[in-house]
Amino acid sequence: MPVSGCPLPVPLSPQDVDDLLRCGICFDYFSIAVIIPQCSHNYCSLCIRKFLSYKTQCPTCCVAVSESDLRNNRALDDLVKSFNSARRQLCQLALDAPAPPAPP
Amino acid sequence: MPVSGCPLPVPLSPQDVDDLLRCGICFDYFSIAVIIPQCSHNYCSLCIRKFLSYKTQCPTCCVAVSESDLRNNRALDDLVKSFNSARRQLCQLALDAPAPPAPP
Ligand SMILES: [Zn+2]
Ligand SMILES: [Zn+2]
Ligand SMILES: [Zn+2]
Ligand SMILES: [Zn+2]
Repeated sequence: MPVSGCPLPVPLSPQDVDDLLRCGICFDYFSIAVIIPQCSHNYCSLCIRKFLSYKTQCPTCCVAVSESDLRNNRALDDLVKSFNSARRQLCQLALDAPAPPAPP
Repeated sequence: MPVSGCPLPVPLSPQDVDDLLRCGICFDYFSIAVIIPQCSHNYCSLCIRKFLSYKTQCPTCCVAVSESDLRNNRALDDLVKSFNSARRQLCQLALDAPAPPAPP
């Protein structure tokens, strides 16, 4: 099927994206996402720095990590922003919509 | 507004995500995304390797890069997959829907 030619606006499955944009330490959306280059796992900058001060490994795969290995992963910050702004717009639409008639 | 308490399923703005998940060299979705750790820019593995064989810098910000700096950015591959599967589902729904009545 020629998906690439699909003319429809395409909402993402929110649950998947939600999962992919969350930090495995705090389970909230990434806040200043950093990548561990040796294993490709991502966390909030603060979350992983706190963790590393206690144990110098990736909390997911246990590869050895030091704080100086961490690098910003800004594409994830941009995706979190884009996700939250779409979310906010949709909620505002819902809040602005007239209330459904009360049941008799 | 308490967005975090929003009970709605939340589609992403497709255009934004589309942009964020595309390689700046081939403009297609990332295929084996790699990050340049020193500048946080991402490209398809093949695209950036070809580029680096010609010029050893990031095509976006011109920071010096060698092939050995590149690291996989698997979260982006997962997001591309998630985006494309949502896309495919939606298109299938549209194709399966009964055709609108022909104009008289
Ligand atoms: Zn976190
Ligand atoms: Zn890891
Ligand atoms: Zn590419
Ligand atoms: Zn760059």
